[in-house]
Amino acid sequence: MNHKARMDTLTRLETTIAQRLAASPETSYVAKLHAKGLAKIAQKVGEEATETVIAALAGDEAELVGEAADLIFHLMVLLGEKRVPLDRVLAELDRREGVSGLDEKASRSA
Amino acid sequence: MNHKARMDTLTRLETTIAQRLAASPETSYVAKLHAKGLAKIAQKVGEEATETVIAALAGDEAELVGEAADLIFHLMVLLGEKRVPLDRVLAELDRREGVSGLDEKASRSA
Amino acid sequence: MNHKARMDTLTRLETTIAQRLAASPETSYVAKLHAKGLAKIAQKVGEEATETVIAALAGDEAELVGEAADLIFHLMVLLGEKRVPLDRVLAELDRREGVSGLDEKASRSA
Amino acid sequence: MNHKARMDTLTRLETTIAQRLAASPETSYVAKLHAKGLAKIAQKVGEEATETVIAALAGDEAELVGEAADLIFHLMVLLGEKRVPLDRVLAELDRREGVSGLDEKASRSA
Repeated sequence: MNHKARMDTLTRLETTIAQRLAASPETSYVAKLHAKGLAKIAQKVGEEATETVIAALAGDEAELVGEAADLIFHLMVLLGEKRVPLDRVLAELDRREGVSGLDEKASRSA
Repeated sequence: MNHKARMDTLTRLETTIAQRLAASPETSYVAKLHAKGLAKIAQKVGEEATETVIAALAGDEAELVGEAADLIFHLMVLLGEKRVPLDRVLAELDRREGVSGLDEKASRSA
Repeated sequence: MNHKARMDTLTRLETTIAQRLAASPETSYVAKLHAKGLAKIAQKVGEEATETVIAALAGDEAELVGEAADLIFHLMVLLGEKRVPLDRVLAELDRREGVSGLDEKASRSA
Repeated sequence: MNHKARMDTLTRLETTIAQRLAASPETSYVAKLHAKGLAKIAQKVGEEATETVIAALAGDEAELVGEAADLIFHLMVLLGEKRVPLDRVLAELDRREGVSGLDEKASRSA
């Protein structure tokens, strides 16, 4: 996947999620999640993270890829529900590296 | 953030993480995590997901941005530790949309 | 609930779970979980913990009671699946208090 | 562990937690958690659940016992913080079994 494709994936996904969040519940999975509310969307992020953990420890590569995709997808639904652009999160990742490198976190206990 | 910057963030982060994973433990947070092993890295993904859930429900926007950044960061460390390129995960997100739209998941219970 | 009833709840639940884990999958929810395997049971513990977190932050008392019951239930299924008696876990809780009080954990970062 | 000891463990733990929750932050781990607030306590429940999942999949029996004890302990701190008696949770477990057996959950997807 070249840079353009990678960029397009996240950009297109964010746009699609925003459209689905605004549509009526019967039209899509995302719209149904939106109708169930923020707590349900947050719960899905927690569930997919648990499944990612399990896939990393006990699954094969395809399972890890699938669960990581589910986790990113539901995280983007959560951000969309809260109207937080993904760019704000990416800018925060940039900022940390820009200011002090990934070692910024080294002061925290691992 | 334009498309180029967004692309650069993830590309640069993935490269940096791969370098840190291969370095000696005292040199960075990522290297320290690597030395502690896969289970510890997986645990961090679970922890950051819980913190993201809590920030979404009980925190402000800055907290959600910070926790979502932590979650993506640790997910990328986990993928790096397992030598799974982020592009495989993004390709999976593409595939789902390409084959059947985000509604692919509609058949699952929300 | 008096002490006898409290004791009976956990004792009876542990016995029932052990019986169900040994039965054929179509006979009960626990037997079905067992057939799906350890990873699925562990995943349920993670899911119920996330739901407990959400109920504590965003739900009412009845929701928290229900989710905490689900969490204890699935934790006991996990212990049963691994053939770890609940008494070993309770003895560990006793030991910590006996040796050093609940403050044993004070040395850890909260 | 006989029934009396099992009963005593949970009863004594619940009482101790209630006392610690009401004390000043520097006096104990529980008091410190209370000072940090409900979100922090909920986060600990999520973290300990993740560690329990990992111990079940990748650890030995002693690790699982330790993590399950941590999970029960922090769940009881969460219930104490919300002033929900453990007996309410146990009564809910009883009710489910009394009304319909553990199979009550069989109607849910596993």
